[in-house]
Amino acid sequence: MANSGNKRIPVAVLGATGSVGQRFIELLTDHPWFEVAEVVASDRNVGKPYREAAAWRLSADMPESVASLPMLDYSADLQSPLVFSALPGEVAEEIEQRMAREGRALFTNTSFHRMDDDVPLLIAEVNPDHAKVIEVQRKNRGWSGFIAANSNCSAMHLVLALKPLQDAFGIDAVSVVTLQAVSGAGYPGVPSLDMIDNVIPFISTEEEKMVIESKKMLGRLDGATFVPANMVMTAHCNRVPVRDGHTECASVRLGSNPEIEEVIAVFENFRARPQELKLPSAPERPIVVRRENNRPQPVLDRDTERGMASVVGRVRPCELLGLKFVVLGHNTIRGAAGASILNAELFHAEGLLPV
Amino acid sequence: MANSGNKRIPVAVLGATGSVGQRFIELLTDHPWFEVAEVVASDRNVGKPYREAAAWRLSADMPESVASLPMLDYSADLQSPLVFSALPGEVAEEIEQRMAREGRALFTNTSFHRMDDDVPLLIAEVNPDHAKVIEVQRKNRGWSGFIAANSNCSAMHLVLALKPLQDAFGIDAVSVVTLQAVSGAGYPGVPSLDMIDNVIPFISTEEEKMVIESKKMLGRLDGATFVPANMVMTAHCNRVPVRDGHTECASVRLGSNPEIEEVIAVFENFRARPQELKLPSAPERPIVVRRENNRPQPVLDRDTERGMASVVGRVRPCELLGLKFVVLGHNTIRGAAGASILNAELFHAEGLLPV
Amino acid sequence: MANSGNKRIPVAVLGATGSVGQRFIELLTDHPWFEVAEVVASDRNVGKPYREAAAWRLSADMPESVASLPMLDYSADLQSPLVFSALPGEVAEEIEQRMAREGRALFTNTSFHRMDDDVPLLIAEVNPDHAKVIEVQRKNRGWSGFIAANSNCSAMHLVLALKPLQDAFGIDAVSVVTLQAVSGAGYPGVPSLDMIDNVIPFISTEEEKMVIESKKMLGRLDGATFVPANMVMTAHCNRVPVRDGHTECASVRLGSNPEIEEVIAVFENFRARPQELKLPSAPERPIVVRRENNRPQPVLDRDTERGMASVVGRVRPCELLGLKFVVLGHNTIRGAAGASILNAELFHAEGLLPV
Amino acid sequence: MANSGNKRIPVAVLGATGSVGQRFIELLTDHPWFEVAEVVASDRNVGKPYREAAAWRLSADMPESVASLPMLDYSADLQSPLVFSALPGEVAEEIEQRMAREGRALFTNTSFHRMDDDVPLLIAEVNPDHAKVIEVQRKNRGWSGFIAANSNCSAMHLVLALKPLQDAFGIDAVSVVTLQAVSGAGYPGVPSLDMIDNVIPFISTEEEKMVIESKKMLGRLDGATFVPANMVMTAHCNRVPVRDGHTECASVRLGSNPEIEEVIAVFENFRARPQELKLPSAPERPIVVRRENNRPQPVLDRDTERGMASVVGRVRPCELLGLKFVVLGHNTIRGAAGASILNAELFHAEGLLPV
Repeated sequence: MANSGNKRIPVAVLGATGSVGQRFIELLTDHPWFEVAEVVASDRNVGKPYREAAAWRLSADMPESVASLPMLDYSADLQSPLVFSALPGEVAEEIEQRMAREGRALFTNTSFHRMDDDVPLLIAEVNPDHAKVIEVQRKNRGWSGFIAANSNCSAMHLVLALKPLQDAFGIDAVSVVTLQAVSGAGYPGVPSLDMIDNVIPFISTEEEKMVIESKKMLGRLDGATFVPANMVMTAHCNRVPVRDGHTECASVRLGSNPEIEEVIAVFENFRARPQELKLPSAPERPIVVRRENNRPQPVLDRDTERGMASVVGRVRPCELLGLKFVVLGHNTIRGAAGASILNAELFHAEGLLPV
Repeated sequence: MANSGNKRIPVAVLGATGSVGQRFIELLTDHPWFEVAEVVASDRNVGKPYREAAAWRLSADMPESVASLPMLDYSADLQSPLVFSALPGEVAEEIEQRMAREGRALFTNTSFHRMDDDVPLLIAEVNPDHAKVIEVQRKNRGWSGFIAANSNCSAMHLVLALKPLQDAFGIDAVSVVTLQAVSGAGYPGVPSLDMIDNVIPFISTEEEKMVIESKKMLGRLDGATFVPANMVMTAHCNRVPVRDGHTECASVRLGSNPEIEEVIAVFENFRARPQELKLPSAPERPIVVRRENNRPQPVLDRDTERGMASVVGRVRPCELLGLKFVVLGHNTIRGAAGASILNAELFHAEGLLPV
Repeated sequence: MANSGNKRIPVAVLGATGSVGQRFIELLTDHPWFEVAEVVASDRNVGKPYREAAAWRLSADMPESVASLPMLDYSADLQSPLVFSALPGEVAEEIEQRMAREGRALFTNTSFHRMDDDVPLLIAEVNPDHAKVIEVQRKNRGWSGFIAANSNCSAMHLVLALKPLQDAFGIDAVSVVTLQAVSGAGYPGVPSLDMIDNVIPFISTEEEKMVIESKKMLGRLDGATFVPANMVMTAHCNRVPVRDGHTECASVRLGSNPEIEEVIAVFENFRARPQELKLPSAPERPIVVRRENNRPQPVLDRDTERGMASVVGRVRPCELLGLKFVVLGHNTIRGAAGASILNAELFHAEGLLPV
Repeated sequence: MANSGNKRIPVAVLGATGSVGQRFIELLTDHPWFEVAEVVASDRNVGKPYREAAAWRLSADMPESVASLPMLDYSADLQSPLVFSALPGEVAEEIEQRMAREGRALFTNTSFHRMDDDVPLLIAEVNPDHAKVIEVQRKNRGWSGFIAANSNCSAMHLVLALKPLQDAFGIDAVSVVTLQAVSGAGYPGVPSLDMIDNVIPFISTEEEKMVIESKKMLGRLDGATFVPANMVMTAHCNRVPVRDGHTECASVRLGSNPEIEEVIAVFENFRARPQELKLPSAPERPIVVRRENNRPQPVLDRDTERGMASVVGRVRPCELLGLKFVVLGHNTIRGAAGASILNAELFHAEGLLPV
């Protein structure tokens, strides 16, 4: 492991004042390996302390250690070798590539590079072996650093739940309908006039992302080429008046016909590389199964395993595809910043960080 | 038509103080054919005027014509030949059967008799021909009156949307996930602690009802026997923080592969018996299609055609089943009281009422 | 009355695509005296039909008569002699003054000119005599048209409720705490992350506006000078997760000590100039009193008298000031567009319009 | 201090399955002095483990240590010398008195005995000296145990904020309007149909309780007699769609006219007996002042100091009474179970517990 002594690796957070940026900062407070050293956002607030630049919205008070850091803008010459990106899509491409070119390890929550042929789209428990495509990436692009992405927040929890099923039974088809929280749209995000007493049955490009990202993550890396999972998949995405926590109703056609209790056992017994390595942000149980017939629910279950687990419930037969269940997870912790940090921990533990 | 002159048929409403009971009363105000003459509920308030017995919750004021009617209890000797039932399930069986035995036309919104072999489960636009099973019912049971049921509120809008597809293309499979409004659970119904910032991914027996009721309504009456529609169907039902209006995400495998515009045309051109007969509660367009990509939405679309239409949107290809779309409708108007009244209007126009 | 035959006066709506602008258009549909002839907004959408420029959010469909009108921008040479303004504050000053200079009657919902010494701040039932200050205004400014304003949405309902008390008993002091709906902040307005499971105990400049506007409206016009009402007033304004309808808890020290029933009678018997003139938008009862102890409530009472009434409830003694009660009203109908239209109707009926 | 070694005092929780009962159990988990030994509720579930009897709603999982305790009913012969009561009002009187008669220390969150002449109504920081009235109580009633009450949840936070003002400046008058969370009504409590898109401007008996309880707590114990605070007070209570956290808008007339910064300093410097004694549940700062103009807010501030602080904001001049501010606090932690536990800790530290 590259970390020696108690010296923590300095990290920069890009898009530090936004919703996901704030979550990065919250989750990195008191992190054993990483330390927020630089906060970066658009130039409006450059030079101001983070305390003044960010309207902190995660709890009463922002972490003291970050509050006094001066805001940097995107042109700043960063010192941190490790960078987390919560950039808005429109500026992500150029900035993220520059970071990698400059030799930094960039872990991005932005969608821009997710589907690039030489960028790993990673869930640490699902496809840690995809990480090695960064060698191809470096060769292709002549970079000393690299870009590693995590997926869309709703794909994240679905794929985490599908992975042990794929391993145990194979997966032929998936139909998913989501009920997504408003924090997924950032801040200001969804107007309250669109959410009080309402549902919006549409989230721009979300259904497409869920399908292609899920197939990439459940697929395999064949040398320098990603082969997407060979399964049929359809998604319908809705926005509902919930602060945090995406609820997803999934029907799945497996490669075989296990008993329901067997499926539940497969969910509950799922452990993977982050659990073996005891990564600091790894949930003890990546998938938690609730047996009550009215669970999981956002207010009760989104913080399971500090928001890093996917909570599965209502596992039962599906008349159409054989198996159906609900999966719920925290969309800005496991679904965004927490997933990115877990990926960085995996790289660090595997000796893949350039530090 | 049996109605002569301007004399309206007196009707009784059972369960008149509850959510659906109030909706019956609201919709029957100024009805051209029917007039609320008797309001019936459990004996707690017997003799009091409706004004005092009911905590009216549909708008500022209850209809004046009903406010002073005295509450009757279930043992009362009713005068009305036409009865609408919004009874709670536990008391429905005996009382509803008594009404039919006494020669009344009973239109029920309760689930108790829906799946009986000789009870029509009717959507006036979908299966008006099923009405004639009441002859079998009368013979079987020796009744001079009859019981006619309408379906579960979420099955209602789905089936209304499926009907023209079935007629035009045939239907092999349906997968539906609902986001249902709290008014569907009556009053007091769902506690606010279960709904603020939350979703409940379960509604007791709702998924089973959606499947069997849909198949009965889309099936055919073969002499004295109902033959359910030959299709595979799966449902997942959720409760969301919305007052009125169920949103349903449906994927459908048709018998053929029409273009999307052809499907939309079939939805938009759908007209049926209630429209031909110009029944007073019939929507001009039973199905209204929205072209915007973020519609239908409960707050904007639930009152379309006075709450009597199903509003369809996001009609698009489904990777799994071929076609997917959203259907939304008012759950206590078209999904309950309004549907029951429309059924009674159909019977009246067809000369099937015992008056 | 100036209106002759069935020719309606063409009106322009400034800021026609916003929340209040849409409400103007909705309320002017089928208006007997006025007809929306011109829709004006910032130049982004100039030339497009209103149908494409406005994301209509008041109900399923926008009025057909307006949907095809082409969008004009603020520099357009308008034809309408009567103009309703729902302009955003930052652009209101120059444009509104230009309209008046050009000879138009400009009724504005914007705060910019409300407190000007020669601009009437009008509630048609409360201070119709203030209208005549437009003569001073014209002289002062050399305009052939004029500007007439209506108040802030929360001041509107409070002052409407205070007026009959002032007339009957005099008012020495008022303490009010508001629970305001999100539509008051326009669209997109309040982010849903700030409203789900939350209250915001602050609305910028709202408390100051409530106090000074209330005093101006309840004061008197002494020749060319407004003398504010001589009363002490304090306000605290909160935003709550409600779509439409401001709830306000008021305590009042009257000039005398009437019985509660006497106060209620004064509320209920209140009629004023709009009721005498039978203005088209005038509520039959400007103040509706509810006797139930848990009313008024936004979902039940905001649409009373088509949203044009203030609904008062919980009239009871106040230990501190003598009298307390709740007043609720629709903030974008009576509290904004509807009030403006009623003012224009008043001017029209009194022969004060330049048409 | 009475506690010796690491033996914890066994406690019983009455009404253990309800909302406040669950909060007692959550807050007593890992308590250094007290240990939940007995869970008591109505006899429906007697003998079942708590796990099965309670629908746990505070987070994903109930504390393991309590989950297997068998439910007792109210007739059980309890072993615990210390009892916390979250009983429903209708059964509280007889049961609570029996507990005290049997020699137990009974800390109740129920309203039944709060205003009794010989029962202390306590906030540990506000009126700890009132505790000694239990000697009068024992003498009066011949009890070996005693009853000590905590106040209504909305009075709690108001009084906690008023106490340092009273000490520093004196208080002549208070006007308060509350925006209360639904958890204050228990479970099932407020129907979601009454809360989605709505406000209820009434909570039964709440306004009366706020006034008389506040005066008792801010008054003084003169020998065996409580002398209520000599101040005028008025309250208006509203229910709003918020899960936890009461927001209260207060105007106060002090005995003198301090500068706003002086008032803020008095709030911030407030410390009392629980802080001196370093009681386990005592907040470090009983009152936390926010300087941002839009705070406190329920979602951001209710968990300040583990839900045990009152959070004050918007401290500013009041045109009517001189000073106004907002106070917000967690209604089921500091406002109920947490306050009761803190009271018991105070008694324990002062050697007043019969153990």
